[in-house]
Amino acid sequence: MDPPGGVSIEALRELARRRHGRSVLSRIDGQAGEEVIDSLADLNPALGHHVAAFGFGDIHDRPGLDPRSRQLVTLGSLIALGGCEPQLKVHIGAALNVGISREEITEVILHAACYCGFPRAVHATFAAREVFTERDTAPAN
Amino acid sequence: MDPPGGVSIEALRELARRRHGRSVLSRIDGQAGEEVIDSLADLNPALGHHVAAFGFGDIHDRPGLDPRSRQLVTLGSLIALGGCEPQLKVHIGAALNVGISREEITEVILHAACYCGFPRAVHATFAAREVFTERDTAPAN
Amino acid sequence: MDPPGGVSIEALRELARRRHGRSVLSRIDGQAGEEVIDSLADLNPALGHHVAAFGFGDIHDRPGLDPRSRQLVTLGSLIALGGCEPQLKVHIGAALNVGISREEITEVILHAACYCGFPRAVHATFAAREVFTERDTAPAN
Amino acid sequence: MDPPGGVSIEALRELARRRHGRSVLSRIDGQAGEEVIDSLADLNPALGHHVAAFGFGDIHDRPGLDPRSRQLVTLGSLIALGGCEPQLKVHIGAALNVGISREEITEVILHAACYCGFPRAVHATFAAREVFTERDTAPAN
Amino acid sequence: MDPPGGVSIEALRELARRRHGRSVLSRIDGQAGEEVIDSLADLNPALGHHVAAFGFGDIHDRPGLDPRSRQLVTLGSLIALGGCEPQLKVHIGAALNVGISREEITEVILHAACYCGFPRAVHATFAAREVFTERDTAPAN
Amino acid sequence: MDPPGGVSIEALRELARRRHGRSVLSRIDGQAGEEVIDSLADLNPALGHHVAAFGFGDIHDRPGLDPRSRQLVTLGSLIALGGCEPQLKVHIGAALNVGISREEITEVILHAACYCGFPRAVHATFAAREVFTERDTAPAN
Repeated sequence: MDPPGGVSIEALRELARRRHGRSVLSRIDGQAGEEVIDSLADLNPALGHHVAAFGFGDIHDRPGLDPRSRQLVTLGSLIALGGCEPQLKVHIGAALNVGISREEITEVILHAACYCGFPRAVHATFAAREVFTERDTAPAN
Repeated sequence: MDPPGGVSIEALRELARRRHGRSVLSRIDGQAGEEVIDSLADLNPALGHHVAAFGFGDIHDRPGLDPRSRQLVTLGSLIALGGCEPQLKVHIGAALNVGISREEITEVILHAACYCGFPRAVHATFAAREVFTERDTAPAN
Repeated sequence: MDPPGGVSIEALRELARRRHGRSVLSRIDGQAGEEVIDSLADLNPALGHHVAAFGFGDIHDRPGLDPRSRQLVTLGSLIALGGCEPQLKVHIGAALNVGISREEITEVILHAACYCGFPRAVHATFAAREVFTERDTAPAN
Repeated sequence: MDPPGGVSIEALRELARRRHGRSVLSRIDGQAGEEVIDSLADLNPALGHHVAAFGFGDIHDRPGLDPRSRQLVTLGSLIALGGCEPQLKVHIGAALNVGISREEITEVILHAACYCGFPRAVHATFAAREVFTERDTAPAN
Repeated sequence: MDPPGGVSIEALRELARRRHGRSVLSRIDGQAGEEVIDSLADLNPALGHHVAAFGFGDIHDRPGLDPRSRQLVTLGSLIALGGCEPQLKVHIGAALNVGISREEITEVILHAACYCGFPRAVHATFAAREVFTERDTAPAN
Repeated sequence: MDPPGGVSIEALRELARRRHGRSVLSRIDGQAGEEVIDSLADLNPALGHHVAAFGFGDIHDRPGLDPRSRQLVTLGSLIALGGCEPQLKVHIGAALNVGISREEITEVILHAACYCGFPRAVHATFAAREVFTERDTAPAN
């Protein structure tokens, strides 16, 4: 992508896509989401690039669904998927960021229990507690 | 539950719970949901009872989350879960019933692809097409 | 549910259902199960209510399947599901409580490997070891 | 494995393991299980060999768990796994073969709903109906 | 994205990304992959766009992993995921397209059984048979 | 299997199968794999036996697929499966052992994201980091 003596148009394009994606990610997921991308930077920077450029820049920023609706779908998917508690925590935080209340989040978890069973829901409740506690004890954010 | 000579209080309670659940299910899932319960009546009536009484009467009818939000969570969970296309179809219909547009439903599926991959999303799109086509060709509903 | 000046009939009904469910849960899952419900009490009390009232009061207490058989099904489901180790531990404890031996539990795990692969089975074995060790070192229970 | 002019000891060993496994499989899964193995014979004979030799000869035939218990674990795993309806049908038949009643099988499905949600349970009920109907209409078996 | 009187730079960029992605997809998945994208065109064109532009243009075309290795990872993922047989069939075809033999594909399926159990492997074998049969009977491709 | 006064032929056969499997496992998974088997020895020795005898001796050692290809399939399956991070770590180490580079492993993870979503891929990246760090800091291995 980087020819000698210059920067390719594809590299510039991807830089623009990543910057746009990062700004969307920062708006929705806040610091917790940025930390995930940053933590991928040394080992799997391409994954971090595409989470930002594709996941947030291309998909989350589409006008066809409001941010609240997107986070509800995300929570439904992650609770059902299971085994992704750190990512679930980031998106519980994102849900709070777009205006979904704590009471609604626990209601989302109870609702999802009908479709993916109680164990996933109990697990998700403990993830939610960790997020809420972190928010209560954090100096800012 | 049914003592000789009468009907137990638990049986009456469960009858009331089921009636309430059926009315909620009918309001949200419409005819497609009722057909699922009816189709369970001969072989696993207790499952049908609890889908209605617990899933709809106890959970869907709780005030803490609006019907639109509940269907978004349901879609997120079912797309991620996979392998439940008939149930996904019922709930795509339910999403339409509570006012989620066809465009939003396909956007939900695209959004979920970030969290559970493209194959689940392609599969869900085909399920959505079947529901939309049925609605277009049905005389009423 | 609680009108001013009194308690609604639904609230009384749910209180009775929860009490019954807690007694079933206590009998089968013992202290570990009660701790799960108690740990949900502050954040998602409705989830705790329905795990007890529906999961244990309505389902586990049905006469159509003996407690040993129910725990075998539960173990098969939780091992296959994966990613729910704390819940798996509670139900390994419940299996011991209803008379399934340690040797049978490890045999259950080996058997499940045919259907959900070795990694889930290895994971489940480590969960079983934690439960067995806790029992060996606990002063009572 | 087959040196020129003879049969290797490993080949003889595997033949014995397969024969033993087939006899166990035939006893438990009956004709439906044999048909699965036979249907693999042209394309993936090694898979068929190991399902029989390992899955049935090595695991199902171990003395540490009775056949009824093994089928309960199998059903719990397959209902939770989802997306394996043909295999679920074979094992619902196997459950009948080892003496688990139709009423118990539907109860197993209802029970599993607590751990893996209603959609998997509804799906499994339809699989059970197909097995029961086949048994009712089959001339023998 | 489309200002009055012209085409936005983003629309041109996405057109270029899609064209590139389609050419990669066509090379790897062949006609079966193109048919999937085309079948999404009316209902969820954005999903088709991103499968091509992101999945194939951005990811499959990266130099860090050869096409054979990518298809082996894809098969491992899809067999474990389950419930995505049409997509599995497309990628079994893609595996053949990049030079993985039929014998290797059935070996891949047997190998995956260790990690995700026999039912998924049996299911995948039947999907492979359908692909092989279609190739044998198709006039060309 | 062990009659009084002697060792059964089946016990000798299984001993040979286990020894062979252990040698294959040791060659591929190295010390990390051996530690898994050893850690099962007290509680579920039969599971350890069959992971070695069947998983490695019977399957991994088959000639139809080279070790590199087998590990790529394994990684694809384990990333998609989720919730098996310790086993994923063992197999990331095995991938390194058979000559798959660190850059290829992170590319495998990025590639799998198309099929099982970003959360599983992010999780797998963190598992890979742990393995790489352990290798960098270990005195030998």
